[in-house]
Amino acid sequence: MSGAGISRRRLFGLGAAGVAGVAAVGAGAVAGRSLIEEPVAHAATASDPVPFYGPHQAGVTTPAQDRLHFVAFDVITKEKAELVELLQEWTAAAARMTQGKDAGTFGAVGGSPEAPPDDTGEALGLPASGLTLTVGFGPSLFDGRFGLAGRKPPALADLPAFPGEDLQPEISGGDICVQACAHDPQVAVHAIRNLARIGFGKVSVRYSQLGFGRTSSTSRSQATPRNLMGFKDGTNNLKLEDTAMLRDHLWVASGDGPAWMDGGTYLVTRKIRMHVETWDRAPLAEQEAIFGRDKGKGAPLTGHGEFDPPDFAKKGPDGTPVIAGNAHVRLAHPDAHGGARLLRRGYNFVDGSDGLGRLDAGLFFMAYQRDPRKQFVPIQRMLSQKDALNEYIKHVSSGLFACPPGVVDGGDYWGRTLFA
Amino acid sequence: MSGAGISRRRLFGLGAAGVAGVAAVGAGAVAGRSLIEEPVAHAATASDPVPFYGPHQAGVTTPAQDRLHFVAFDVITKEKAELVELLQEWTAAAARMTQGKDAGTFGAVGGSPEAPPDDTGEALGLPASGLTLTVGFGPSLFDGRFGLAGRKPPALADLPAFPGEDLQPEISGGDICVQACAHDPQVAVHAIRNLARIGFGKVSVRYSQLGFGRTSSTSRSQATPRNLMGFKDGTNNLKLEDTAMLRDHLWVASGDGPAWMDGGTYLVTRKIRMHVETWDRAPLAEQEAIFGRDKGKGAPLTGHGEFDPPDFAKKGPDGTPVIAGNAHVRLAHPDAHGGARLLRRGYNFVDGSDGLGRLDAGLFFMAYQRDPRKQFVPIQRMLSQKDALNEYIKHVSSGLFACPPGVVDGGDYWGRTLFA
Repeated sequence: MSGAGISRRRLFGLGAAGVAGVAAVGAGAVAGRSLIEEPVAHAATASDPVPFYGPHQAGVTTPAQDRLHFVAFDVITKEKAELVELLQEWTAAAARMTQGKDAGTFGAVGGSPEAPPDDTGEALGLPASGLTLTVGFGPSLFDGRFGLAGRKPPALADLPAFPGEDLQPEISGGDICVQACAHDPQVAVHAIRNLARIGFGKVSVRYSQLGFGRTSSTSRSQATPRNLMGFKDGTNNLKLEDTAMLRDHLWVASGDGPAWMDGGTYLVTRKIRMHVETWDRAPLAEQEAIFGRDKGKGAPLTGHGEFDPPDFAKKGPDGTPVIAGNAHVRLAHPDAHGGARLLRRGYNFVDGSDGLGRLDAGLFFMAYQRDPRKQFVPIQRMLSQKDALNEYIKHVSSGLFACPPGVVDGGDYWGRTLFA
Repeated sequence: MSGAGISRRRLFGLGAAGVAGVAAVGAGAVAGRSLIEEPVAHAATASDPVPFYGPHQAGVTTPAQDRLHFVAFDVITKEKAELVELLQEWTAAAARMTQGKDAGTFGAVGGSPEAPPDDTGEALGLPASGLTLTVGFGPSLFDGRFGLAGRKPPALADLPAFPGEDLQPEISGGDICVQACAHDPQVAVHAIRNLARIGFGKVSVRYSQLGFGRTSSTSRSQATPRNLMGFKDGTNNLKLEDTAMLRDHLWVASGDGPAWMDGGTYLVTRKIRMHVETWDRAPLAEQEAIFGRDKGKGAPLTGHGEFDPPDFAKKGPDGTPVIAGNAHVRLAHPDAHGGARLLRRGYNFVDGSDGLGRLDAGLFFMAYQRDPRKQFVPIQRMLSQKDALNEYIKHVSSGLFACPPGVVDGGDYWGRTLFA
């Protein structure tokens, strides 16, 4: 273990880190619609690596992995050059870790028994496990400390207050976020922990969140998972196969705002606490009326299969709509918002219990989109005012991040288009 | 979904819940050494069920699954009969859930759209995933409320205070614990959540803990995993194949104490917070000296392979022991404690961050043993006084539980030998 940095694969003989899910990076950039071809960045099996380089960041349309470790950092250095250097070091480490390697050697540390190891070691022997690392910049990064005020995208406007929310500032916001998704939580935790280690003295962890059991599918190859209310979640999610819809609803296009975000996307995070004990005592019929869907198959109450389109006009024998006016499926449906859609990538969480005999559990909601002002904000405004589900949930954190385009090659780094 | 309870397998066509890892339950009970044959209770694949019935509880020697949801309940009912009824309901639900079925129907709820569902639903469509549910009773259950004071085993004596610990009462103790282990966290969470739901009004959740990345192997078929300090953990753990050692160190034998615990075992839990950021800045040589092992392969500093026995007498060129006097491997070794051993079943945890820019991370230590007074207590007394690792860790919770023998068949229930 002396000498060069530990290679997970070299040490354990797992063979070269071949790229299984080959990236089919589109070359057909068209003025005003650049970068609209999808890299098919997904792992062939749960242990394979996902390509790191590409026009878009991985971890957005990548078929949702099973585990999450999300972190928000506060930047504590006041030196822009030091921040840029950190982003370069992070990018090099991310490129290595996503391919199943250790966090690598970059600087004074590592290589000697007299120095701290340049990888924390807990993922030694574990495969890449589909790890993706996705970076975003919060509105607070543009507050003037680093001369970025003029580069803040209008779409990164602070979210408005919504009725009923109870946001805790200490688990909201953040200058920089990193979403680590993997099929093995130890691999996701290892990645975030090594980024925090590399960033020591320059950033500090503002909050971090573990999640399990994704609550949406982002590919038609995935079955729709269930949230902790027991319902299938994300039936109507944007999928990586919906190329035209991703162009319209997910990726920032040239002309949308500052050019540094072209090919990027915006991330909204909301930690949604569920009152699971109360929910568990609600009658099945009430639960199904609230969602507007059957609990077993996930079919709308007006249909038979999960993917049957809901018939919002249909009335029951008593003359009232079968899907109630305040049912979640009605209010969240694109038809209620001029067609606005989100690419959701949320995860269930259980953070132990709350000291009052209840599980501290719910949904860590994450949604990627082209412009939150036109997508998340109007959708959430309506949901927060009318959704029958509100009786059983509470939004306790909020985050908004501008996720830049992908790292194109080994000479590129997270945020280059913003800082360079 | 009306009518009978939801069957995960019926609904989703996964076929009958066949038992893959067939239980070879020993019939050779010998006076004074009853129940010493091991049921080989392990899943053939990560999705298969583990047998629920047997002379010992599953989830002890069962090859450690990858995920944990541990819960401690306070009993709030004052009626012994109500507590017994709850244990019977829990047992029926556990027998179902461990075989990949829903939590089932047992009483007034369920079966009608006008009633709450008798399963919360989030595990619908998921296989058994190796789920085991293991119950234990804490010292506080024997405080006289239920007339059990005379049945408290001497081995369930409260643990002494140890130097350096900083125990938080709200995440320590508990009247009843349930350890849920599974290869899918959603399955483990579902099981604990449904037990809490069934127990509403009779018990309340005192605390719960999620874990991932087991930190010990309990079978020679498993590679030794790594803790969050990056070191292999549990190299010298008791393994299910060590039948004679399990008899001596794990299972309570006839004559050890009250007969109701024959075939049972004692569980000690300790939440051990790691100061990972400090650890990550320690030189590699210091880390290895503290553990007394090489970080890469896990070999003792006096050997070459992970399973080479440490040579505690060996000296280096400077005349000092190669494995230091305060090295973890030396102090934790059975040789330092008259041969005392533990069956460890711990899990890594990350509970987000601590508000001070650090990950709230560490090890949820769980160790099963025949008598904590002769095993955990002397080992921890020495470690807490001398272990070089103490600079980087802190014990923040503690639990002690008497885990009764296994449920032998469908007419039996958790705690029958104690209550009947």
